[in-house]
Amino acid sequence: GYIKSFKMAKSTFEYVKTFEQDDTLLPNTWIVVRLDGKCFHKFSEDHNFKKPNDIRALKLMNYAAFKVLHEFNDVLMAFGQSDEYSFILRKTCFLYKRRAAKLLTTLNSKFSSTYVFYWNKFFDQEPLKYPPTFDGRIVLYPSDENIIDYLKWRQADVHINNLYNTSFWTLVLQGGLTPAQAEKRLCGTVSADKNEILYKEFNINYNNEPNIFKRGTVLMRKSLLNESSKKLMSIIVDVHDDMLKDTFWKENSNLLLPKS
Amino acid sequence: GYIKSFKMAKSTFEYVKTFEQDDTLLPNTWIVVRLDGKCFHKFSEDHNFKKPNDIRALKLMNYAAFKVLHEFNDVLMAFGQSDEYSFILRKTCFLYKRRAAKLLTTLNSKFSSTYVFYWNKFFDQEPLKYPPTFDGRIVLYPSDENIIDYLKWRQADVHINNLYNTSFWTLVLQGGLTPAQAEKRLCGTVSADKNEILYKEFNINYNNEPNIFKRGTVLMRKSLLNESSKKLMSIIVDVHDDMLKDTFWKENSNLLLPKS
Amino acid sequence: GYIKSFKMAKSTFEYVKTFEQDDTLLPNTWIVVRLDGKCFHKFSEDHNFKKPNDIRALKLMNYAAFKVLHEFNDVLMAFGQSDEYSFILRKTCFLYKRRAAKLLTTLNSKFSSTYVFYWNKFFDQEPLKYPPTFDGRIVLYPSDENIIDYLKWRQADVHINNLYNTSFWTLVLQGGLTPAQAEKRLCGTVSADKNEILYKEFNINYNNEPNIFKRGTVLMRKSLLNESSKKLMSIIVDVHDDMLKDTFWKENSNLLLPKS
Amino acid sequence: GYIKSFKMAKSTFEYVKTFEQDDTLLPNTWIVVRLDGKCFHKFSEDHNFKKPNDIRALKLMNYAAFKVLHEFNDVLMAFGQSDEYSFILRKTCFLYKRRAAKLLTTLNSKFSSTYVFYWNKFFDQEPLKYPPTFDGRIVLYPSDENIIDYLKWRQADVHINNLYNTSFWTLVLQGGLTPAQAEKRLCGTVSADKNEILYKEFNINYNNEPNIFKRGTVLMRKSLLNESSKKLMSIIVDVHDDMLKDTFWKENSNLLLPKS
Repeated sequence: GYIKSFKMAKSTFEYVKTFEQDDTLLPNTWIVVRLDGKCFHKFSEDHNFKKPNDIRALKLMNYAAFKVLHEFNDVLMAFGQSDEYSFILRKTCFLYKRRAAKLLTTLNSKFSSTYVFYWNKFFDQEPLKYPPTFDGRIVLYPSDENIIDYLKWRQADVHINNLYNTSFWTLVLQGGLTPAQAEKRLCGTVSADKNEILYKEFNINYNNEPNIFKRGTVLMRKSLLNESSKKLMSIIVDVHDDMLKDTFWKENSNLLLPKS
Repeated sequence: GYIKSFKMAKSTFEYVKTFEQDDTLLPNTWIVVRLDGKCFHKFSEDHNFKKPNDIRALKLMNYAAFKVLHEFNDVLMAFGQSDEYSFILRKTCFLYKRRAAKLLTTLNSKFSSTYVFYWNKFFDQEPLKYPPTFDGRIVLYPSDENIIDYLKWRQADVHINNLYNTSFWTLVLQGGLTPAQAEKRLCGTVSADKNEILYKEFNINYNNEPNIFKRGTVLMRKSLLNESSKKLMSIIVDVHDDMLKDTFWKENSNLLLPKS
Repeated sequence: GYIKSFKMAKSTFEYVKTFEQDDTLLPNTWIVVRLDGKCFHKFSEDHNFKKPNDIRALKLMNYAAFKVLHEFNDVLMAFGQSDEYSFILRKTCFLYKRRAAKLLTTLNSKFSSTYVFYWNKFFDQEPLKYPPTFDGRIVLYPSDENIIDYLKWRQADVHINNLYNTSFWTLVLQGGLTPAQAEKRLCGTVSADKNEILYKEFNINYNNEPNIFKRGTVLMRKSLLNESSKKLMSIIVDVHDDMLKDTFWKENSNLLLPKS
Repeated sequence: GYIKSFKMAKSTFEYVKTFEQDDTLLPNTWIVVRLDGKCFHKFSEDHNFKKPNDIRALKLMNYAAFKVLHEFNDVLMAFGQSDEYSFILRKTCFLYKRRAAKLLTTLNSKFSSTYVFYWNKFFDQEPLKYPPTFDGRIVLYPSDENIIDYLKWRQADVHINNLYNTSFWTLVLQGGLTPAQAEKRLCGTVSADKNEILYKEFNINYNNEPNIFKRGTVLMRKSLLNESSKKLMSIIVDVHDDMLKDTFWKENSNLLLPKS
């Protein structure tokens, strides 16, 4: 008697499904999915990340992002820095009918599980002590100008943070200052001051720092002609170009165009 | 000249932050975060999950969910079955100011990375071939009745699916039917028919199947008196009780009460 | 050739309909639609509203609200004060499938056009110089306690505003103070101070002021037994009861109950 | 003792304000506010609207819309037909901080109360029997192409409806058919068929029908040079142009441009 009624029971309670609310994203807008490491200050200390930049950590972030682009064709490009990654989905993207939560969680989960899965590929001497967490958000941008400004905003952020972090850690690790002293020393300084400190006191020319540190990483799709098969192949490349300069957008003028 | 302008550049582009939209959840409502495995049919085949239920896979799901409850006190309880887990957050939850995307992605990411991290703990003979993906959604329920009905709905679903899957795989694995034949055989049958097939043809009493298969897993917080210290301790327990029966809700009448 | 293509043209452009976004309200929650007069300070001056309260204006507001309740059965009750009206819709309301914009604009438009239509019924000596505008918003409340607190909040607001306005306009109209002087005189005073000013200086016992001024107006549905037909009739009554007191909610204990 | 506590009471209940949810519209998108008459089929019969088009009713709609444009500078243009009006707000509109409900209800209420207020100006022989209701909705369009297609969609709709209605009412009023017979006669006909019926049977050349019937009304802002003062004045004009033709958009190429 009891077993017989499971389907009836289910249909009695199924009304709760009507409480699910539609979260379809406005069509014809650029979709940005931005992921951020949660408590990565502690996570980076627990795993002995090199300061101010750990190339292993950046490469793992880039690899996890690459895997996201590899699986989801609607992700046009991505930009990463530190413990943060932004994925840009085409205006015409109709994946999961543009349902916000579905898009957001799928990319977030894929990135998170991939990060753990490939940890050892990049941190062979440093075992993963516990699984990290990334939060995420979705933002819509209606025009090409808006999405370009978004990417410029994130890259300007890298410049500012990296110059500060490079100065701070040089003062601490090479200059022998305590973190508190280094912080005080840098308080109120502008970019030129920090460049001068690095150059005069530590003989470091900030311009010569690796671009991946100064500019973050851009993942883009490129079309390549396969010489033997004479066919066009789509590949994903990682570059560290300066998106704040117009030349980047001229050289990649077809990046934001609709697929033909 | 160029470096000097990064802060200016950033402030020029910072307007893009105003495109972020508020997604605060309505106060005083139960929050359900439900996660679902993406393409787990294929994932379970690629990793040789035992059919119709793989106890290792269920235990890994439960363990990842346990880790979520362990970290987030606002998660009152959780219910899991197959490749799906529902987390119930208190009506008074104010974590991340009740921002939907933040809550959703944090739980989803934590669960996803934990699943990969602890894979070997449960699948020691079966290496993880690639990282799995879970999608997620948030649903709000205003009343206690609604949230109880939600849990009953999910558990009724376990009953229906498990009876079907047990019958199907018994017909295939023990009865020698092809999947297509088994599907045809079960088409149009009600619960009583499936019970009879199992009992008469395979001598299987469905009622004796393990509760974890028939009912899924409920994770709950319990208060325990530590005998030596005489202090109350909060622990997380996993049970396979029948939430469709009133006795469950009577015995756990304080489960949904506000924290005192 | 041109005319022939209108249906084709329409179907070409019909994609724009997909940009409409779903705004269904969460089920099983109290819906409040609150309307507010726009620039009613000026509107009341332009139409010689008596200060601090104009009984004609309040009665017109009540009448327009009455017409809303009369037309929409899902509106359980309403509360009005000054140039503001709140309509309470049942938790089970499914009018227009609970679409927010549809509910909001229909009530708002009905109220606005009714206000103009019946102006002369209440302001026979005072012609309407221009049509007024009301804005509106929707707020959801999950529990009975929340919706009761909402109504108490709005009524506490009447008490505070009316005591202030009564004191202010008495000082101006009977005390001969300029508005600036009256404002200064009341600055920093508490309720007891204002009561004292009214009583000692103007011999006005605030408690004797009309309840409609002190408490606003509650519109409720009541069931009446028609003596001759012996049938239950539903009527809409206006009262000026004190919702801050428990007795109101005891005497009207069936007000918030689901319809039987 | 009781009076003293109103402010305290208010602050106790003020938490209900936190249940109001943010509804800010995505920046840099065209905002359409579309209003529709509720039950206007009955309303038009109750007020003896001439069939298929009543010029008084259309002029009153246009006048109410004109008043909306006159008051709200952010409304760039509007398009009306039958009992429906669409208002187009600039992409850069920041009125009421782009709060959806506030924008929607303000325009809707203004239109509704204005419609009643000016009824007699257009219907001098026909008293308004009861106040009409208009519902409204907001739709966002990211690109210029989208907003142009929206306007073309609404105008194609006028063409289709008006040709049908003209044919239907000519068959009824001049042809002596019952409504049911007229409906049956038109069932399955294309535009060319309807044109032929009108021309061959009733000697009506549909092309000669007034443009306001065939195309609806476009309200636009134009800049005029005041000859005497030599100053530019902004005026609102009503035209019945064909927005389906490219020439309209060429001649009004500055219509959708950002304000300089």
